[in-house]
Amino acid sequence: MQLNCPMPKFDFDFITMGHGSGGLLTHKLLESGVFDLLSNEKLDEHHDGAILDLKGKTAFSTDSFVISPIFFPGGNIGELAVNGTVNDLAMCGALPQYISLSFILEEGLSMKEFWDVLVGIKAACEEAGIQVVTGDTKVVEKGKGDKIFINTTGIGTLHPRADISLKNVKPGDKILVSNQIARHGIAILSKRQGLEFETSIISDTTNLNRAVKKLLDHFGKNIHLLRDPTRGGLASTLNEIAGDTGYGVVLEDRAIPIDPQVRGACEILGLDPLYIANEGVFIAIVSSEKADAILNLLRTTEKCEHAAIIGTITEKNPGKVIMQNVMGGKRVVNMPIGEQLPRIC
Amino acid sequence: MQLNCPMPKFDFDFITMGHGSGGLLTHKLLESGVFDLLSNEKLDEHHDGAILDLKGKTAFSTDSFVISPIFFPGGNIGELAVNGTVNDLAMCGALPQYISLSFILEEGLSMKEFWDVLVGIKAACEEAGIQVVTGDTKVVEKGKGDKIFINTTGIGTLHPRADISLKNVKPGDKILVSNQIARHGIAILSKRQGLEFETSIISDTTNLNRAVKKLLDHFGKNIHLLRDPTRGGLASTLNEIAGDTGYGVVLEDRAIPIDPQVRGACEILGLDPLYIANEGVFIAIVSSEKADAILNLLRTTEKCEHAAIIGTITEKNPGKVIMQNVMGGKRVVNMPIGEQLPRIC
Repeated sequence: MQLNCPMPKFDFDFITMGHGSGGLLTHKLLESGVFDLLSNEKLDEHHDGAILDLKGKTAFSTDSFVISPIFFPGGNIGELAVNGTVNDLAMCGALPQYISLSFILEEGLSMKEFWDVLVGIKAACEEAGIQVVTGDTKVVEKGKGDKIFINTTGIGTLHPRADISLKNVKPGDKILVSNQIARHGIAILSKRQGLEFETSIISDTTNLNRAVKKLLDHFGKNIHLLRDPTRGGLASTLNEIAGDTGYGVVLEDRAIPIDPQVRGACEILGLDPLYIANEGVFIAIVSSEKADAILNLLRTTEKCEHAAIIGTITEKNPGKVIMQNVMGGKRVVNMPIGEQLPRIC
Repeated sequence: MQLNCPMPKFDFDFITMGHGSGGLLTHKLLESGVFDLLSNEKLDEHHDGAILDLKGKTAFSTDSFVISPIFFPGGNIGELAVNGTVNDLAMCGALPQYISLSFILEEGLSMKEFWDVLVGIKAACEEAGIQVVTGDTKVVEKGKGDKIFINTTGIGTLHPRADISLKNVKPGDKILVSNQIARHGIAILSKRQGLEFETSIISDTTNLNRAVKKLLDHFGKNIHLLRDPTRGGLASTLNEIAGDTGYGVVLEDRAIPIDPQVRGACEILGLDPLYIANEGVFIAIVSSEKADAILNLLRTTEKCEHAAIIGTITEKNPGKVIMQNVMGGKRVVNMPIGEQLPRIC
């Protein structure tokens, strides 16, 4: 979503230590445009905390975002911070409603960059249908941070038909992925100092709550588990599931959707796309009898056009993720140890 | 609270970039002791989000903590991060129940320091009676952070008798402060590089939820407003209240409780204690007819022994904070512009 939100006139061109004081400069910063941009009934109270009316089972999730660079092909840290927490809530089977927004700014950050991040936040909130209801702003000295770190923490009521739990996963269940993998990590890598390469690959950062709601509306308890394979990629998420359930995961190499340009970049760089981060893709583990119907629904859903059934939960190979190729060859997909690519979220 | 929690055997002596990967190193870090230390039914699920049963009006508040140094007289950044968010919830009239915990660690942080901060978190949670139910860990390169930044975001149901709102503040209301002021800021200052001075002043960091609950149990709607004067001190908080209500605030110089050692340090350093941060003090604006009874209750409450009535809400001097001395002299107490002392929370 592109919003037309011209930057208001701030008294400063750059963030200073005083903007984190809680005094006049903090107030002026917030009241010169930040509060207006994100305005809603609850935030407008300008309190240290928001008062929400909640009822029943509620998901609660937090994430800090330290991505570098803060502007990347397809988005910025602000959109990523909103989408990341919205998606964590969606993976619980919740309907995201409210988020908190907490900044750690580095002294010297330009107001223009800060504003562009804020506009990214607003756009992502509007797309996901959630509200920023409370926040915080801190400033650290130049050299003690890196432009901007953002924490978002979200709240959402569980979908009435959701029953998402590791306990529901059973052998025979099918594993779906909602879209082409590895776009976010490759988009960030393409802009990293010393690694720039020519590509039109953009991050897949987006909210997943609308697609998840649609799945739950239609298929309720047939959706056994949802996960978004961000840091560590598909390999990390599937290894976690195998480890936590004690079952095996068997993947079909050819079934995994991947953009040819992303595959090409991975080959050139010697990276395995299974380990590359995604920010707009989820895995659904679903009952086998409904798997095709769920796939068909997903494929008619925005940003899930490339959804695919990529594997099966098995009793064999407990705790392990096995990749099968079309020739019948098999390899173990291990949990990544460290990081191929630090600070991608 | 001093806990006896010996550090478990970690594979590393220092935090590495891989600990923020979301892969094997992240898992090992969390599962080598972090999860065990903070264990509770909800956190033990090890999901990206926690599922909570909530009902009715709920307060939601966030704060990031970037204090330097991370260990200071009277506490560490972990305790501060828990108490800070617990107190923001308490100031809404809520009963804090759950918090999220999100770390931004700098590569090279020693495991010993990380563990000591975690133990501080556990101790503060036990004292306040709340649970860490979800979290996140990120790592940034050496020189892109400062040892450890922590975000905590909290949730708590409103006290059934609470009706805390700026709208309830009216002329004649009395202003109480719950304890001696300015201890936190002076304790931090005493340890700052180049400023060390000999003192036994320790931070006042503590939870305020138990004292607030006691006030609300007994005096309900007579408690019109609660605020904790952290960054910017008493001056900033009272100016906000004057500005937001449109009423005046008149303070009695001699009534403001302050430890003689803190007062002495402020005099030597040329600092006004009204502008110094507190982390275990709150202001209550209460109906005048109950003010003495509320004061008496507070004075029998732990960590509120020095509570005092320090001023009155007036129709005169709208939007301003006026300090009266015993000789009848008056001065305006302005909102601080920048920061006397950066990164005190």
